[in-house]
Amino acid sequence: MPTPSVPSTGVSPLQVTQSEVFSQIQSDVLLSSSLWANIALAGLSALLFVYMGRNVSSGRAKLIWGATLMIPLVSISSYTGLVSGLTVGLIEMPAGHALAGEEVLSQWGRYLTWALSTPMILLALGLLADVDRGSLFTVIAADVGMCITGLAAALTTSSYLMRWVFYGISCAFFAVVLYALLTEWAAAATAAGTDEIFDTLRILTVVLWLGYPIVWALGVEGLALVQSVGLTSWAYSALDIVAKYVFAFLLLRWVAANERTVANAGSAGAAAPADD
Amino acid sequence: MPTPSVPSTGVSPLQVTQSEVFSQIQSDVLLSSSLWANIALAGLSALLFVYMGRNVSSGRAKLIWGATLMIPLVSISSYTGLVSGLTVGLIEMPAGHALAGEEVLSQWGRYLTWALSTPMILLALGLLADVDRGSLFTVIAADVGMCITGLAAALTTSSYLMRWVFYGISCAFFAVVLYALLTEWAAAATAAGTDEIFDTLRILTVVLWLGYPIVWALGVEGLALVQSVGLTSWAYSALDIVAKYVFAFLLLRWVAANERTVANAGSAGAAAPADD
Amino acid sequence: MPTPSVPSTGVSPLQVTQSEVFSQIQSDVLLSSSLWANIALAGLSALLFVYMGRNVSSGRAKLIWGATLMIPLVSISSYTGLVSGLTVGLIEMPAGHALAGEEVLSQWGRYLTWALSTPMILLALGLLADVDRGSLFTVIAADVGMCITGLAAALTTSSYLMRWVFYGISCAFFAVVLYALLTEWAAAATAAGTDEIFDTLRILTVVLWLGYPIVWALGVEGLALVQSVGLTSWAYSALDIVAKYVFAFLLLRWVAANERTVANAGSAGAAAPADD
Repeated sequence: MPTPSVPSTGVSPLQVTQSEVFSQIQSDVLLSSSLWANIALAGLSALLFVYMGRNVSSGRAKLIWGATLMIPLVSISSYTGLVSGLTVGLIEMPAGHALAGEEVLSQWGRYLTWALSTPMILLALGLLADVDRGSLFTVIAADVGMCITGLAAALTTSSYLMRWVFYGISCAFFAVVLYALLTEWAAAATAAGTDEIFDTLRILTVVLWLGYPIVWALGVEGLALVQSVGLTSWAYSALDIVAKYVFAFLLLRWVAANERTVANAGSAGAAAPADD
Repeated sequence: MPTPSVPSTGVSPLQVTQSEVFSQIQSDVLLSSSLWANIALAGLSALLFVYMGRNVSSGRAKLIWGATLMIPLVSISSYTGLVSGLTVGLIEMPAGHALAGEEVLSQWGRYLTWALSTPMILLALGLLADVDRGSLFTVIAADVGMCITGLAAALTTSSYLMRWVFYGISCAFFAVVLYALLTEWAAAATAAGTDEIFDTLRILTVVLWLGYPIVWALGVEGLALVQSVGLTSWAYSALDIVAKYVFAFLLLRWVAANERTVANAGSAGAAAPADD
Repeated sequence: MPTPSVPSTGVSPLQVTQSEVFSQIQSDVLLSSSLWANIALAGLSALLFVYMGRNVSSGRAKLIWGATLMIPLVSISSYTGLVSGLTVGLIEMPAGHALAGEEVLSQWGRYLTWALSTPMILLALGLLADVDRGSLFTVIAADVGMCITGLAAALTTSSYLMRWVFYGISCAFFAVVLYALLTEWAAAATAAGTDEIFDTLRILTVVLWLGYPIVWALGVEGLALVQSVGLTSWAYSALDIVAKYVFAFLLLRWVAANERTVANAGSAGAAAPADD
């Protein structure tokens, strides 16, 4: 096991404590199982999705398929980053936090890679509902803002208050996404004739995505009511399994069986060029 | 107040000196007011813009509205990062610099978040002028290049010369943006019938955006003719207030009042599919 | 020459060892020539490409031109980052690696900037072949995944195995790109009447891009069969020269001479709106 030492002058960012964190994760069965389980499931999902999309041919359905396929592929990369210690760090909590002055393991890589995977989910949903370009852009931009300010909340150690300020900003971005999913996008899906599957996926997404800020607030990074890093990590991992792989499976199965409806939605949109 | 100490092995990137920098900012009224003023104004702008865009319905106008709304939202996140010390650091200036060997407070987060907010400004302007896809892409790519190489200039400490090399590259990218705004985009706006408002916004943008490299050159990061970190920060903040919030207000007010013109510009573009 | 010392508390990320690495690069003629040669060639290419594209007017051809022009502009910024030491670091190799325990110079900035330049190459190729939106999106997303996991492989120091796990994931993303280039995109180019130039550029891209993972595997970061940092750097630089500047020159020359064919491909795509 590597001995923690004063960082050599010359190390790159991200290098300083990887080995230390890597050992710490490996020796915590609960924590490491929460990561490896997702790598395995994401790998199986990716193979399954390639198979499920083999006959999709219309441009619009292929775009949905491509975005959906990226979800498990980003996930594998993300969880490999966590397992290797590359995108995990020890954070000294500021005064005011329940664990003030202690070093807490922060899986900051999760927030970073969500900024890449969650736009894929919204892109697939938006194409399914045939929403207009302006709405798709605004919702995806707000989603990226939500993830990046969530990353900022996780990395802020100067002040307990500032952690929650970033949390609040992230939730405000989330409110934009929620509002669109529940109102405008639902109406668009009805118009496009995809409302049956859209409603299922929308409820799944809204309910599960609400889980992430709740886990943050209750876990080690927030109020620390749950102080186990392994439990917090499993909570995120379980949410990821349903919100990403189960979600993507349901979506792809429907698109493969209803390719005509999806392609027609695209054509209708093209008839009103200002909207597509 | 946290005591500066040798960084613990195990800290994440961005963690090392946040607390130290956070305290330093809080104790400098000029500096901290330059940041808090923008958080307040960006918050008010975002609320105002949501209200102003409530009746926008055409796809093209909604896309402009969405891009414009992102400008203050990115700004709030950016300034919160600066105030908390998360995206601010101390930089030891290289030999040749007026403050060589001294540690200078660098607000490097500004350059990073400009890479997210300035494309929104150009996207809104380009849609307003109904420019073709190729031009919009090239100008936004050059703009992102300008911001990222500006970030590189700010973070380079190995050599005074290399700081100015990056500055020069950033200005070259800026020249591409300026050239497009002054020639091709102006002509496109005339064709689209949006030239009155476009000309106002173009002049505003060109004049104010020229201010940023000038502030860099004169301020602590460049020639250090102005050595006050607070004054340099206020110069950037004042530019941001006009180039972002006032700009966005004028644009949205016009779009809300002239939605028909904006939507028609989009339709005309669609008649020449190779251009849209 | 700056004396390596314990990093001051307060330095920004990327600051810690720039001066040390900068001196090390300057004193290695083989290494520094591999970087400066590319800065010079990329600069000349950019000027040449601006000249070559001066008469391009159709929207589709201009978009190809804009994407192509970005290739050398990103390259200049990338190599300036390497030369200045900003995006280079010393990495202590983990147990199992041929240079275990030694500090190796890692040019991690290469992987980061490839995530910006290679999508431009694929965008230009995809527009040339007139591929559908879904395919273009999936291939570019896989390409970005390839570059980011390549960056992760380069920065992982906790475990020799995990370096190769990231390498494997990156190669899996690469396989998606290769598959599309060799099958679907080739067929699309035939349909669009651009197959002559597309075939040349495709072979160039496939052969040269295969070189990068081979250099990684043989060089200091992988099996370390070649232990010279300068030679490894020249191998990457030589690949960049042909895969980026020669590639872009051939593409632009063809587009400038065959603008009608390119523009028509775009119009045909627009007649099948679900695909464009």
